[in-house]
Amino acid sequence: MEKKAEDNFEDQYGRAGVRDTPQLLEYYSKLKALNTDALWTIANAIEPWEPKPTSIPMLWKYKDLRELVIQSADLVKPEEAGRRVVYFANKGRTETGACVGWLYSGLQTMRPGEFTPAHRHMASALRFIMEGKGAYTVVNGHKIDLNARDFVITPNDCWHDHGVYEDGEQCIWQDGLDIPLMNTLDCNFYDVYPKPAQSAKYPLNDMPLSHAGSGVLPDKLNWENDYSPIMRFSFENTYNALKDLDKVSKGDKYGGHTVRYINPTNGGHVMATMGGYMQMLRNSESTTSYRRTGSYVFQVAKGKGYSIIGGKRFDWEEKDVFVIPSWTFFTHHNLDDNDDACLFCFNDLPIMEKLGLYFEESYAEYEEALKKGYKSSYQGRD
Amino acid sequence: MEKKAEDNFEDQYGRAGVRDTPQLLEYYSKLKALNTDALWTIANAIEPWEPKPTSIPMLWKYKDLRELVIQSADLVKPEEAGRRVVYFANKGRTETGACVGWLYSGLQTMRPGEFTPAHRHMASALRFIMEGKGAYTVVNGHKIDLNARDFVITPNDCWHDHGVYEDGEQCIWQDGLDIPLMNTLDCNFYDVYPKPAQSAKYPLNDMPLSHAGSGVLPDKLNWENDYSPIMRFSFENTYNALKDLDKVSKGDKYGGHTVRYINPTNGGHVMATMGGYMQMLRNSESTTSYRRTGSYVFQVAKGKGYSIIGGKRFDWEEKDVFVIPSWTFFTHHNLDDNDDACLFCFNDLPIMEKLGLYFEESYAEYEEALKKGYKSSYQGRD
Amino acid sequence: MEKKAEDNFEDQYGRAGVRDTPQLLEYYSKLKALNTDALWTIANAIEPWEPKPTSIPMLWKYKDLRELVIQSADLVKPEEAGRRVVYFANKGRTETGACVGWLYSGLQTMRPGEFTPAHRHMASALRFIMEGKGAYTVVNGHKIDLNARDFVITPNDCWHDHGVYEDGEQCIWQDGLDIPLMNTLDCNFYDVYPKPAQSAKYPLNDMPLSHAGSGVLPDKLNWENDYSPIMRFSFENTYNALKDLDKVSKGDKYGGHTVRYINPTNGGHVMATMGGYMQMLRNSESTTSYRRTGSYVFQVAKGKGYSIIGGKRFDWEEKDVFVIPSWTFFTHHNLDDNDDACLFCFNDLPIMEKLGLYFEESYAEYEEALKKGYKSSYQGRD
Amino acid sequence: MEKKAEDNFEDQYGRAGVRDTPQLLEYYSKLKALNTDALWTIANAIEPWEPKPTSIPMLWKYKDLRELVIQSADLVKPEEAGRRVVYFANKGRTETGACVGWLYSGLQTMRPGEFTPAHRHMASALRFIMEGKGAYTVVNGHKIDLNARDFVITPNDCWHDHGVYEDGEQCIWQDGLDIPLMNTLDCNFYDVYPKPAQSAKYPLNDMPLSHAGSGVLPDKLNWENDYSPIMRFSFENTYNALKDLDKVSKGDKYGGHTVRYINPTNGGHVMATMGGYMQMLRNSESTTSYRRTGSYVFQVAKGKGYSIIGGKRFDWEEKDVFVIPSWTFFTHHNLDDNDDACLFCFNDLPIMEKLGLYFEESYAEYEEALKKGYKSSYQGRD
Repeated sequence: MEKKAEDNFEDQYGRAGVRDTPQLLEYYSKLKALNTDALWTIANAIEPWEPKPTSIPMLWKYKDLRELVIQSADLVKPEEAGRRVVYFANKGRTETGACVGWLYSGLQTMRPGEFTPAHRHMASALRFIMEGKGAYTVVNGHKIDLNARDFVITPNDCWHDHGVYEDGEQCIWQDGLDIPLMNTLDCNFYDVYPKPAQSAKYPLNDMPLSHAGSGVLPDKLNWENDYSPIMRFSFENTYNALKDLDKVSKGDKYGGHTVRYINPTNGGHVMATMGGYMQMLRNSESTTSYRRTGSYVFQVAKGKGYSIIGGKRFDWEEKDVFVIPSWTFFTHHNLDDNDDACLFCFNDLPIMEKLGLYFEESYAEYEEALKKGYKSSYQGRD
Repeated sequence: MEKKAEDNFEDQYGRAGVRDTPQLLEYYSKLKALNTDALWTIANAIEPWEPKPTSIPMLWKYKDLRELVIQSADLVKPEEAGRRVVYFANKGRTETGACVGWLYSGLQTMRPGEFTPAHRHMASALRFIMEGKGAYTVVNGHKIDLNARDFVITPNDCWHDHGVYEDGEQCIWQDGLDIPLMNTLDCNFYDVYPKPAQSAKYPLNDMPLSHAGSGVLPDKLNWENDYSPIMRFSFENTYNALKDLDKVSKGDKYGGHTVRYINPTNGGHVMATMGGYMQMLRNSESTTSYRRTGSYVFQVAKGKGYSIIGGKRFDWEEKDVFVIPSWTFFTHHNLDDNDDACLFCFNDLPIMEKLGLYFEESYAEYEEALKKGYKSSYQGRD
Repeated sequence: MEKKAEDNFEDQYGRAGVRDTPQLLEYYSKLKALNTDALWTIANAIEPWEPKPTSIPMLWKYKDLRELVIQSADLVKPEEAGRRVVYFANKGRTETGACVGWLYSGLQTMRPGEFTPAHRHMASALRFIMEGKGAYTVVNGHKIDLNARDFVITPNDCWHDHGVYEDGEQCIWQDGLDIPLMNTLDCNFYDVYPKPAQSAKYPLNDMPLSHAGSGVLPDKLNWENDYSPIMRFSFENTYNALKDLDKVSKGDKYGGHTVRYINPTNGGHVMATMGGYMQMLRNSESTTSYRRTGSYVFQVAKGKGYSIIGGKRFDWEEKDVFVIPSWTFFTHHNLDDNDDACLFCFNDLPIMEKLGLYFEESYAEYEEALKKGYKSSYQGRD
Repeated sequence: MEKKAEDNFEDQYGRAGVRDTPQLLEYYSKLKALNTDALWTIANAIEPWEPKPTSIPMLWKYKDLRELVIQSADLVKPEEAGRRVVYFANKGRTETGACVGWLYSGLQTMRPGEFTPAHRHMASALRFIMEGKGAYTVVNGHKIDLNARDFVITPNDCWHDHGVYEDGEQCIWQDGLDIPLMNTLDCNFYDVYPKPAQSAKYPLNDMPLSHAGSGVLPDKLNWENDYSPIMRFSFENTYNALKDLDKVSKGDKYGGHTVRYINPTNGGHVMATMGGYMQMLRNSESTTSYRRTGSYVFQVAKGKGYSIIGGKRFDWEEKDVFVIPSWTFFTHHNLDDNDDACLFCFNDLPIMEKLGLYFEESYAEYEEALKKGYKSSYQGRD
């Protein structure tokens, strides 16, 4: 039997600090025979001073992947693949299929006239359109056109399928889902639509056209769902909001200008488990380092620059995808002196917020905490 | 002593039906001497089968009032008047200063360079701009420009003053407040700002520019107030939302297309006690008759037509103001074959909804109820 | 035509201060002909510096009324009277049927075997049992027994009837309703049950027995109504809670120990428009003077003492009823050196809170404000 | 390189069904070199038709563990161990320290005069007292006495320590925490109190004595925390609520009588991430089989019987602990003909509910679904 308590030893009051003895080793054996064990042999490991994410900061270059993604359309048909997607595999999370934390993401391509089989699942899903023309999605009978840089949600438990019109062009978009989370929470379900694809039951684009007005909603709207009835957020609208914000705000040193996609019926996130935002870095802007709980997937919607994540530099340009694990310091830098850069992000912030788990810390606060002998500013707060 | 129970007599089980007798009259005298009385002498009167509003449907023609309003600027200065407003007096509510129910409304005018003294009160207030150039309001230090047909809120307990820039033109707008309600609820307060007018503490138009984006809000916005951070709702945005809605919806036979002004942080009304909406009647559209609880003040934002309110026809054109009392049947009619008409409305719906007092009935339901011997469809429901 | 603006004159910047002139009088005439008027002629009156309630502090002695109430059972039958109630008429509110503000209250008596006709209405209702045995109420088919000092709700729009079992004793209870409010808000409805009385559809006392547990609720309870599923709050439970509170709290100098009756599914008030609380004054305790918005009706549940309301002393003992109008200073005093006194109160606090109209001020704050030249501490706040 | 897509093959439209080819294998190699992969090689595995929990139904007999737990007090001191706990290790989750899903549980013992070092963490915690006298906990300065069968919460981020009074007896209680979840969500933090133990800052038991009243809460309580201010739920109160419920309800065939511990300020669960309930099985009662998402830890609070979990029988008596993994069919059976049995349960239902992930199915619905060719009743719903 291997020593365990000793590996776990920390010499501080309030932490487990037990040395193994022959008597204890024998005791541990008895416990194990009853499918139990002594907490103090693992306590420090399972209760770290601060989060120790296994996910690794990574960036995927679109130009490296684009041809392979397009090639997938030659290799498999959408109806064979279920969904024809090349997914991002985080080196620290290979067993989960996640790109960071419990979030999954991949690049899906669709040729004119093609469509995915309609289905639904407990996982929530979203898309951010990268290129092509004539893409659409159908969510619970609502058919919605998708243009480059549009953000669209397909909430959990909703029937959905996607395609490209016959007269369109081959499209590529980023998929984001919380499939890994649903698996690890033991509540993943899957269902296939009784027909290959849904028919539109409502006028084209009825959801965004009805609910995306500025400052208004349809009278007597009675929206009980925990997702945004806007469903598709056009880049034009989002970018205009950022430009308006820029007219009256100096922005935030940690985030530049950032707008969060919302459910206008309650001001909350667009879906129950995943949220999204668009961030604008003004000409040459650099943000100040901080870290926060939650897992974050970025796509560069506009511009070029780089981010320092966990001490490592990742250069990016339009359509590149990168991830920031929980509790990892980062900064963003716009390398263009004459234009802004825009970063689209989706994340698990709704979970952090609903469960009371959001915590953030600037690098300055971190340094201050270190000086006091703490591991982070979580320690020693009033 | 006058007979009372007898006046109150109704010959139906469940209603008061007591005839006066000498013995009872003597009994009533004893009760009155102790500042009490018998419920059955007034029960039917104070518990009617359905609401009996004292407010009267009325319409005020803008063309009749415009010159008088402009003339007020010659007669009194804003600093003398407090606010230089000609208010609408409902013939059934003269003792309250209300135009309908517990809502007050009037026309305020302001010349270039003029402004009202800054103040705050427990009453909530709003404006809908009718004409002129260069109007602005300052609400708790947020300065906001106002153009024709814009809707702006000045929530209760917020410091506010209004004016017209030196280089503007004489402006007229409609004020709406719930002053009478605050009085009757015994909670009206008033306070005068320590200076004649507020200085802008924030960039011009910062609230609408920050919060009126389509489908987004500033990240980390922490809005605890029970009013909309958008504050000013431009007619352009509102009209565009109605046109978009028209592309995908057939509208409602009772209301045409209607969008409600919202607080995007919770989907609720723009203020705690007053709400607003804009209604579009398409070319030649007529709505179907219904009635509802709540008091409603309309301003014609666009077009010409008429409304039948409580059986009486009221013809209207742009900038006319009319009111619909609670529980009064009404229809709206657009007389233009080639253009839509738009009706701005403010009301006390937040109160009806928060207190669980909203009830509505179509004329068809009313006729059905009458056939069953009821006074309205409130009676006999399952 | 009478002068008006002059009566309204206040010589302070930010208030209306216009003297009548022949020209203005002529102008007012023109306005009136168009059913309008000048705000500055009434502005100061309708926008007072602080609330000016028309309700008067009053107390009704139970011993004065008891015989008259009992006598009413000889004079009218419940089915004639609708409800056989002697109501409290506030001298300042005689036209409304209210005992204070927009609240109605009265004393209802019922003999063994009698019952009121079943009915429902938009007004909310409650009872506090004074004396007798064998009383019950039936609310939407839930039959509930009522003992002395129990508090029971009959929420708006719920069918309800009350009675006394054949083997009971003549009962008297206090009714509280917001009938006057429903009238003045133009949303009062009334309906009579198709049968003389409801049959119990559920086991006796099922609502309190299911929902009044300490710290628990039935699993999977899905309560959508805006009222408490407990429905009946026994004095024993309430008094025990106050005694427990007294073990660990010094109480509040303005209120002694006070517990609010709640809806345990949301922590809110027991009904949408009326709330209730029970207040314990310890041996010889006197509270400190303050005032608040809202209208309050008290019944002495236990003990004897007096209250100073608006500067006037009202001595009370068990079952006496008294009222405190909005924005009126008051204190309570327990005259018993050896026992506590308990005051039951119902009020319109849900309205004040939902509409953002609650404001309170201690007498000390008031004096401080006066020193600064203000009318109350509403003025001059940061 | 190993074949992957083929292992993942399902021959159904809407599922991944791609056979490996040399060309595809080469393609996969290219993807892997870029830290990506083809979704269709893992899609069916990561998107199962229904949850596939790795946790195993297990039961731990208290009589087997009691002596070992007591012995731990001889072997390590609380200040060495941090917390002196023997934890339950689910055979399917050994790498996580969980007893089921992401929930941790163990048995903690404390001798008279001993106490754990005070600390706080992002994990939420709770205790259910098994035996002994004189136990207490201190949570953010609130000292609370703990008796057998009491349920007490120590919410996340609150300072807490536990001990036994000098004049008490050795105590054993069950700890429940969501430490594993905090780890896997990458948001676990830990902090040690600056002193060995907290001093009580408030009167003993102030939280339960103030907030556990039936149907009432302290007036003007302004509780912003997402946990119950009652903090300690006595078995007596809980059992009384179950007995009262039994007087008026036939119970539920799937659960007998069940009451959920609540936060009375909002009707929600006692903490943000973990909930609890107490279930009463009447004399000889057997429940009907169903399954649901979420992870559940039970302690037998009273009586003896057995449960069938995932097809396997687990016999239990007082103080035994057993777990039901997500989406696993189960029934409970009271073996006593003359007395009820009570099961205490804590679980992650707040997470399931807040994230919209709760789904349940009776065995009858399951059989019906199988007949239609589905895997569960999730499939084929309208």
